[in-house]
Amino acid sequence: MTATVLLTPSDRPPPSTRTFTHRHLLSASDLSREDAIAILDAAETFFEISRRSVRKVPTLRGKTLINLFFENSTRTRTSFELAGKRLSMDTINISGSSSSTSKGETLLDTIQTLEAMRPDVVVIRHATSGSAHYVASRTGVHVLNAGDGTHEHPSQALLDAFTIRRAKIGRLGTDGEGGVLGLGLDGLVVAICGDVLHSRVARSNVALLRTLGARVRFIGPRTLIPVAAESLGAKVFHNMEEGLEGADVVMVLRIQRERLEGPYLPTSREYARTFGLNAKRLAYAQHDAIVMHPGPMNRGVEIDGDIADGDRSVILDQVEAGVAVRMALLWLFAGGG
Amino acid sequence: MTATVLLTPSDRPPPSTRTFTHRHLLSASDLSREDAIAILDAAETFFEISRRSVRKVPTLRGKTLINLFFENSTRTRTSFELAGKRLSMDTINISGSSSSTSKGETLLDTIQTLEAMRPDVVVIRHATSGSAHYVASRTGVHVLNAGDGTHEHPSQALLDAFTIRRAKIGRLGTDGEGGVLGLGLDGLVVAICGDVLHSRVARSNVALLRTLGARVRFIGPRTLIPVAAESLGAKVFHNMEEGLEGADVVMVLRIQRERLEGPYLPTSREYARTFGLNAKRLAYAQHDAIVMHPGPMNRGVEIDGDIADGDRSVILDQVEAGVAVRMALLWLFAGGG
Amino acid sequence: MTATVLLTPSDRPPPSTRTFTHRHLLSASDLSREDAIAILDAAETFFEISRRSVRKVPTLRGKTLINLFFENSTRTRTSFELAGKRLSMDTINISGSSSSTSKGETLLDTIQTLEAMRPDVVVIRHATSGSAHYVASRTGVHVLNAGDGTHEHPSQALLDAFTIRRAKIGRLGTDGEGGVLGLGLDGLVVAICGDVLHSRVARSNVALLRTLGARVRFIGPRTLIPVAAESLGAKVFHNMEEGLEGADVVMVLRIQRERLEGPYLPTSREYARTFGLNAKRLAYAQHDAIVMHPGPMNRGVEIDGDIADGDRSVILDQVEAGVAVRMALLWLFAGGG
Repeated sequence: MTATVLLTPSDRPPPSTRTFTHRHLLSASDLSREDAIAILDAAETFFEISRRSVRKVPTLRGKTLINLFFENSTRTRTSFELAGKRLSMDTINISGSSSSTSKGETLLDTIQTLEAMRPDVVVIRHATSGSAHYVASRTGVHVLNAGDGTHEHPSQALLDAFTIRRAKIGRLGTDGEGGVLGLGLDGLVVAICGDVLHSRVARSNVALLRTLGARVRFIGPRTLIPVAAESLGAKVFHNMEEGLEGADVVMVLRIQRERLEGPYLPTSREYARTFGLNAKRLAYAQHDAIVMHPGPMNRGVEIDGDIADGDRSVILDQVEAGVAVRMALLWLFAGGG
Repeated sequence: MTATVLLTPSDRPPPSTRTFTHRHLLSASDLSREDAIAILDAAETFFEISRRSVRKVPTLRGKTLINLFFENSTRTRTSFELAGKRLSMDTINISGSSSSTSKGETLLDTIQTLEAMRPDVVVIRHATSGSAHYVASRTGVHVLNAGDGTHEHPSQALLDAFTIRRAKIGRLGTDGEGGVLGLGLDGLVVAICGDVLHSRVARSNVALLRTLGARVRFIGPRTLIPVAAESLGAKVFHNMEEGLEGADVVMVLRIQRERLEGPYLPTSREYARTFGLNAKRLAYAQHDAIVMHPGPMNRGVEIDGDIADGDRSVILDQVEAGVAVRMALLWLFAGGG
Repeated sequence: MTATVLLTPSDRPPPSTRTFTHRHLLSASDLSREDAIAILDAAETFFEISRRSVRKVPTLRGKTLINLFFENSTRTRTSFELAGKRLSMDTINISGSSSSTSKGETLLDTIQTLEAMRPDVVVIRHATSGSAHYVASRTGVHVLNAGDGTHEHPSQALLDAFTIRRAKIGRLGTDGEGGVLGLGLDGLVVAICGDVLHSRVARSNVALLRTLGARVRFIGPRTLIPVAAESLGAKVFHNMEEGLEGADVVMVLRIQRERLEGPYLPTSREYARTFGLNAKRLAYAQHDAIVMHPGPMNRGVEIDGDIADGDRSVILDQVEAGVAVRMALLWLFAGGG
């Protein structure tokens, strides 16, 4: 499979891929190295479109995207919605609070009802781990998991990989050629810091990063690192300085406020003091290490404002990458033949 | 009036109808047999479009649809929104909770404000019976009633009739010709089961079904059948087995949970035991009877899961029909000359 | 700067303006007379488009509008959304309750996140006065203030000026020529009545009306007129009859219910008795004075229903003007070169 052909000025879409055979995007671990690189390469094309003056192509005109969000979200829902619209899809948003499930309908009936309206893709976010797998196995529509409980958030891992590849592996030339296409993340050391235990972002990232050849570390307090961390292929550290030593990428996770003050953690101040990313700690990483955060950030807790806004931060690049990666996903699932 | 011309591959819309003179769609009882069949016939055209790879036509480009929903809804709002978008309308959703009425504005001022923005069609759902009639009589914009209290839900009755006609009267050939066009539902026996008293779906259905030539039965406990049922033209039964005897269509209504445990009904278990549709009861109907439900379903209460998912069920066909019927309505009201 | 060229039937947009150099629309007081007239003149073009059968132009295809509303709104959000869609923009709605700020994200991080998705314009409504200025100074995207606390609501002032100009200065000929283009509101007397103290509408209006040459009066109880009223250039009255004497335009402000019964005001009945606009009071104004209200109205409190619905009322004209003015703003900010 290749998806490396660039769009011409006439907005010709990339050719359909023959070997992208997935019906759904549920877990990052379902993606082969070849799959993942194909997505990232396609996203390069769409990234370029997103920087044009006219940020829209007719590629998926007449196709339908449904965003079914049972949990609130600004960035993920908006990112998928923009991706769909920039591909000329008809996009529909459904929020959990206004949906029929609030009237007692089962999740499966909701999905099958939506399927009967013949969308091409349903993007689903739900508080229950495994919910995306559950519905995907019982529906004919393409399901993209936009976060299921503490389980997975694969499009986030893909946009993170896209951002890392651009920043650490190479950059596209001004003529749109060369650079990162076809490449993985081989040899890079990525430190994922914070509440790994509850993080679907971490879970998707460790799978994809390893598939792409990176080495992954988890850094966090013992209460927030999963017991099976090492079996996931990550090396575990409970001390920021040790874990950041020599890292190429520092990925800081969001601490969910409802978890602070609970049984896992003392206070936000205590957390910042021991695991917050600040300039002094970042100095242990490579001199050109980049700093990532999936957002929304708790400034002054898991990350210092100076670091979030500093020149090592690629946090806003992640957001921009999100639209391009989701355009690539929609194109592969809704349009790829 | 005829609306039987099929779209060509060039997406040419059906010709304007000259005799569809309604300004609004408020009650199913406002529709003549000729009107109703014209809508169903037009919906056949749009049903075919909804099954294409590119499910969009430019027919109503530059026209505006406003969905004004004061009650939550997944399927009806999504169905109208998709219908509008697939006709290339600009579609705007307004929910009651975010609207100006929450600031004390009258419903009439809300409608007139929206009218001043020059939409072509306003679809309204409101908890008050008669609200759609009230606003329609005081506005120049086309109003489609998407449910007013316990009163009417005419587009639901139309999609139900569309589904019944396809299933019981005939099927379109693969070339899109022949079959059901121009036909009504003459001679069919339709049993509507459950909480008829509070059901706008039942009220719209009995009117339209009779207009189209079907015979209608109501089956339910005495507390849930309107006193005037027989004057509506329905034959009343208080026993499922008797009422289902020989029925061609079994339409199960949703029991609203807030009504169970109240003065009308004992418990959901008791309701299921006496009026829930199960295989044993369904056997009293015709051997090829179809099973319908407007959704969302309470599985195990008014309908067994096995029946809902069984090969007699056309519940998901109803949902698919909904988009096509609403496309037909939007086309007739916003574009028909 | 001129923006007076009318669209041809081929939907050609007005030519780009060279001298409209604003990056944001934050306060009406930022606009020069030349700027304001240019916006009003451009809005005349879009007003004409809004009355066509096909109310859509491809002018801003491929551009993105984000409506970020932290406070509920029907008319302003819908008006901007329709304006964007009729210009073929991709439009995204984000409401405060579903946004990341509810997870503790700062407003600035929210804006910068959205900016990274490369919208062209962000329209923001927020309960905090000064919030639009705050974010605008820290983002590269065009920010349009759709209401910040009790501070400003400049697009409302522009649509009010547009409405006044059409009603009191002249009317466009049927050929679309002549009439009001290039003109201000010189010499008109505008009386703004009610809760001026808390009204962003009043604050934006007094600035713009004076820029355009009108004379402004504030009429209201002492507790609801800002201390600095006269320094804003308005003449203050505490008696309706005196203040309305000879007025060409009577602009009634909404009394927010939560302010009634509080320290500022006695009861709604008392307010209606002393400051409500009724026929008797309106008789003090010019015989052809027009009546305005930004909505939503409290009928029977600040304005009698008879006046709101009477032939002097231009309240619904204001709403219609809103879409045209916002199309002009989006065109100037997102497309003007």
